[in-house]
Amino acid sequence: MLIYYCYTLNSIKLIPIKVERQTSQFNLIDCLLDSLNKNSQKLLDYDILTISSKFVSLSEGRFVKLSDISVSSFADKLSKKYNINPNLSELIYRESDEIFSGSDGFVLTFKNGVIVPNAGIDTSNIMIGYAILYPENPFQSAQNIKSEIQKLFKVNVSVVITDSRLMPSRIGTTGVAIASAGIEPIHDERGKTDLFGNSMRVTQKAIADDLSSAAQLLMGECNESIPFVIIRDSNLQMTKNKYKVSSFSVGPDECIFIKGLSELTF
Amino acid sequence: MLIYYCYTLNSIKLIPIKVERQTSQFNLIDCLLDSLNKNSQKLLDYDILTISSKFVSLSEGRFVKLSDISVSSFADKLSKKYNINPNLSELIYRESDEIFSGSDGFVLTFKNGVIVPNAGIDTSNIMIGYAILYPENPFQSAQNIKSEIQKLFKVNVSVVITDSRLMPSRIGTTGVAIASAGIEPIHDERGKTDLFGNSMRVTQKAIADDLSSAAQLLMGECNESIPFVIIRDSNLQMTKNKYKVSSFSVGPDECIFIKGLSELTF
Repeated sequence: MLIYYCYTLNSIKLIPIKVERQTSQFNLIDCLLDSLNKNSQKLLDYDILTISSKFVSLSEGRFVKLSDISVSSFADKLSKKYNINPNLSELIYRESDEIFSGSDGFVLTFKNGVIVPNAGIDTSNIMIGYAILYPENPFQSAQNIKSEIQKLFKVNVSVVITDSRLMPSRIGTTGVAIASAGIEPIHDERGKTDLFGNSMRVTQKAIADDLSSAAQLLMGECNESIPFVIIRDSNLQMTKNKYKVSSFSVGPDECIFIKGLSELTF
Repeated sequence: MLIYYCYTLNSIKLIPIKVERQTSQFNLIDCLLDSLNKNSQKLLDYDILTISSKFVSLSEGRFVKLSDISVSSFADKLSKKYNINPNLSELIYRESDEIFSGSDGFVLTFKNGVIVPNAGIDTSNIMIGYAILYPENPFQSAQNIKSEIQKLFKVNVSVVITDSRLMPSRIGTTGVAIASAGIEPIHDERGKTDLFGNSMRVTQKAIADDLSSAAQLLMGECNESIPFVIIRDSNLQMTKNKYKVSSFSVGPDECIFIKGLSELTF
């Protein structure tokens, strides 16, 4: 049977890494090493290591005891209007890049390039009475994790820090990339041609977000304890370029959803 | 070495299936059979077959010659306002469940439970001068494809029909499920507890959308010609329940993005 080169395609593998539950600040790289051993897995060159943002935050001590937070008058107003714990409201106020509006129990905010409820602050998967925040500087975290893996494991991997997000009009959350190091987060296909020779109009692919959604299939939101998923054989090219929030996202002023939905025309 | 059961986790595999380019209406199942052979792959029980919505549409003859479409006065207004081909504007008007607003070259619409530019109508990956629409009834299409596979291949698979979508504030598109058959599209985790015994607040996972984003990593938007991706060993349970648009999405009146962004409070 004649097989053309174009049919020798690679399959992508999503490999879950279960960890021991962590209950306070810890060393992420030690935990990764221990977990890889216990899962009988190892990292290979060109692997993409996706990591839950909550797990990165916990490793960095980015959690606070809610009752320790003093409440400003703005946060008090937010708390009453949307029926949110006042201390949590204060944290949302401090952590948000922008606050849009809200509903019972949460406010829609802009944080780290994502439109996310409550500035990505979570009171689940953390000790009772505590709240966990986004990593302080997730791009630096991703870069550091990548470098430490290179040093310790002698392999060249990419790192994507992931969270889950709500989607307009959809029921349920999907994955979103909070930061990456080692892969290009966006593939720009403008100027390429399609199967019929049409030139592509507006197509850019949010590769880092797609990787995050793929990882979410294994990560879970409850007690699965799978904060690492290795994505193998993706064929995605590695890069030494450094990325930042503006590589992944546009500000509220340029967002067609925010502009389009806040100026309903028809 | 003692390995606990909890560490015997399954990896998920994403297997791309390349096809010969189709240039007019065709039989999807014949094409699938031929392509599986040429890719040296086969379908197994519990596989999830993701299929590009454009490919389903093409197989169903859901494409039109733009110059054949006569333009209403509303479409003419839409065309001038947003600099869109008038015939395409008419199609958008006819196909949209709702039109929100627009920008240069497109309008933001609600179609099949997705907020999508131009009602999901595409002029790429179709013959020049033609536009391709969403499948007429994607849930019925998914169910039919599932049944025909069962009959012909004697395997019990799930089917997810996928498209790509823009995301608020993000650069680039990710995957979205237009319809599914055989899997539960949403996993409701409300009432479960997390690692620390906190009960989960609002967590539902958009599994069908996550599967679509995972598939988009291989599908591509240009001339890759990979409209099928098999998702294997996902451990997702199959179901005989039938789903519809309202299983995946809420209407504009209930969407927190539409409500939140159209009533900016702060």
